Amino acid sequence: MSDEQTAGSTVREQAERARAAALVLGRTTRAGKDAALYAMADALGKAEPAILEANERDVARAEAAGTTAALVDRLRLTPDRVEAMATGLRDLAGLPDPVGDVVRGWTNPNGVQVRQVRVPFGVVGIIYEARPNVTADAGGICLKSGNAAMLRGSSSAAESNAAVVAALRAGLAEAGLPADAVQLVPGPRSVTGELMAARGLVDVLIPRGGAGLIDTVVRNSQVPVIETGVGNCHLFVDASADAEMAIGIMLNAKTQRPSVCNAVETLLVHADLADTFLPRVLAVLASAGVTVHADERVAAYGEVVPLAPGDLEEEFLSLDLAVVVVDSLDAALTHVRTYSTGHSETIVTDSQTSAARWTAEVDAAAVLVNASSRFVDGGEFGFGAEIGISTQKLHARGPMGLPEMTSTKYVVTGTGQTRA
Amino acid sequence: MSDEQTAGSTVREQAERARAAALVLGRTTRAGKDAALYAMADALGKAEPAILEANERDVARAEAAGTTAALVDRLRLTPDRVEAMATGLRDLAGLPDPVGDVVRGWTNPNGVQVRQVRVPFGVVGIIYEARPNVTADAGGICLKSGNAAMLRGSSSAAESNAAVVAALRAGLAEAGLPADAVQLVPGPRSVTGELMAARGLVDVLIPRGGAGLIDTVVRNSQVPVIETGVGNCHLFVDASADAEMAIGIMLNAKTQRPSVCNAVETLLVHADLADTFLPRVLAVLASAGVTVHADERVAAYGEVVPLAPGDLEEEFLSLDLAVVVVDSLDAALTHVRTYSTGHSETIVTDSQTSAARWTAEVDAAAVLVNASSRFVDGGEFGFGAEIGISTQKLHARGPMGLPEMTSTKYVVTGTGQTRA
Repeated sequence: MSDEQTAGSTVREQAERARAAALVLGRTTRAGKDAALYAMADALGKAEPAILEANERDVARAEAAGTTAALVDRLRLTPDRVEAMATGLRDLAGLPDPVGDVVRGWTNPNGVQVRQVRVPFGVVGIIYEARPNVTADAGGICLKSGNAAMLRGSSSAAESNAAVVAALRAGLAEAGLPADAVQLVPGPRSVTGELMAARGLVDVLIPRGGAGLIDTVVRNSQVPVIETGVGNCHLFVDASADAEMAIGIMLNAKTQRPSVCNAVETLLVHADLADTFLPRVLAVLASAGVTVHADERVAAYGEVVPLAPGDLEEEFLSLDLAVVVVDSLDAALTHVRTYSTGHSETIVTDSQTSAARWTAEVDAAAVLVNASSRFVDGGEFGFGAEIGISTQKLHARGPMGLPEMTSTKYVVTGTGQTRA
Repeated sequence: MSDEQTAGSTVREQAERARAAALVLGRTTRAGKDAALYAMADALGKAEPAILEANERDVARAEAAGTTAALVDRLRLTPDRVEAMATGLRDLAGLPDPVGDVVRGWTNPNGVQVRQVRVPFGVVGIIYEARPNVTADAGGICLKSGNAAMLRGSSSAAESNAAVVAALRAGLAEAGLPADAVQLVPGPRSVTGELMAARGLVDVLIPRGGAGLIDTVVRNSQVPVIETGVGNCHLFVDASADAEMAIGIMLNAKTQRPSVCNAVETLLVHADLADTFLPRVLAVLASAGVTVHADERVAAYGEVVPLAPGDLEEEFLSLDLAVVVVDSLDAALTHVRTYSTGHSETIVTDSQTSAARWTAEVDAAAVLVNASSRFVDGGEFGFGAEIGISTQKLHARGPMGLPEMTSTKYVVTGTGQTRA
């Protein structure tokens, strides 16, 4: 079995090889998959020099093209980052295998037994942006959940991704599993379109990246999509909120890691609290380096830049925050209904009534009371692995761990029963 | 609150009214929804004369257009069928409410509590063909699961559907719920396209009908779709099968109700059994009025019509059956992999090994051992209500009851915790 991908294959040919590999994965025990994850981790270690060299070429190309320092940093691999990829694969081996779990089961009055059992999807396509570490993460999560992975990374990380995938495939082959269980999908932009058209060959597509990428996939794919991650998240400080608690949660939810989807982008403050709370929170935000975007109603209490059109829709993903005074819980709910992307929405309140209305009426993957939205995360939820955070309502909503990477089938067993 | 639909609204206007209604439904208790289901049932009873008159006009139009007797029969309503719709709504009131169910929950080490709770989708669009009874069923199932329903029926049943929906809306208004929780989506064919484009307003689309309808929706919808129902189902009689059992299951799975998606369309017979089993099964099928489509290998044992191109792909939905001799379990698995639509696939066998391979390797919503595929049905599974049988792998697979008509949200509650 070769660990080299066949050059010049079409997406459909790649998908057909992925289907054949998925058939084998579906029959592979947890022990077999865990052995492969260890072999893949070892292969990443062995390939570290080649991966770093390939990455240097990607980085040099990005720098020559004038890419921002932040993006270059996301693209850059180091020995530590390669080691972290390998550790991630070994950690996956330690997690329970969702495949074969009996979700529910019963016996019909006529003695027919019905069990609903977790099974892999089959072939999963992941379309993602710059970070090359996603290549190893996504490949590992797909493998552990019994799915063949078709990885469509960004062209800026093409050489890094190819080197990582070559190592993963070498590990698979060494463990006696088909190398085609993990494939990179190279080629020009049109290839993404072919992946989105591969209905019947690819079972699920998961876009991971910015709003533009996700929107393109959601609108154009004929393959079923799991939409991940765009988070225009709000924090509402209710009239009864404890000010200290609200400031602590606000600061954490904005500054602990501003670039992620569960960071708060807009602070809504109940008008009753404006006089006492706004001066304090604005001072704390300013000293944490946060730029507040707000109208005059807020500007009276501290330093702000004027609210620009679009600021309330925007996922800043930076140390920027919109602040809005609202006159009531209802006004806060209406604001969230208007601007939320349905990711993670927080209330800080001491009122049982306000908390109940917030959790019932806000339509989002996660609704939080008196806790930082940064907890909405597969790791924090104890899932051990996370392929992304779904913001759609079908199949999986919120952080997606290994069980969310599976489907189910009904196994129906009888002794000759027929329907009356 | 008017029980009359606003004439001439665009699909988007209708969807916006549905969203407003869904917001109310999401806050309505089970008691409130059940009271509405009873009121809707009573309203159907009161409207019976109007519904039957409207239906007569649809039937007359269909007959004048030369519609087949079978289709006219599906279109026709009788006092019994209207009463059955009302009974269906009252039965729904007796079922548990999935909304608010805690799917799982835990407490993080830092004391943050996480619960995954069932919530309605919001607005569900159902696109369906001739049967007007689907109008009441789908409206009732959506209501019970807390979803506003946008019902796009076929033009052939336009007047019947309008009369049924008017009654449902009158019942809703009487129970104090928004009539816009159930709306018919009238208008020309282009309206279906508008429904498929209403991403963000309509949460889920469920097409119910023939393969052509379902394929169109799946390929063109920007709204997430749950694919239902096309069943090219197989029954494989393994070498170790009990012949009596195999004949009983075969007959039941073909003739008990040939027009449905879980009826068997192709019989695969292990070559070892051909001499003994085929003459018997062909005789039994012939006396049950089944036309067998087969090649010479089968023709040697009984009366058949020659297998035409496409017969193996086709969902006959009639007393027609393809019969194929296969040389091994592997050949049967390959045949199923080639032709199955992933609905319900049956093996009759006494071999533990064959049964295990069949259930593991066949990729379908339901895999059956020694039982009729006619059991793959929400009613037979004890779900009490069924909106359809999903043949996709995302969200729901197999018969869909009330829980499958919901999403979930995570409710995260703390006492001021922040992420380290």
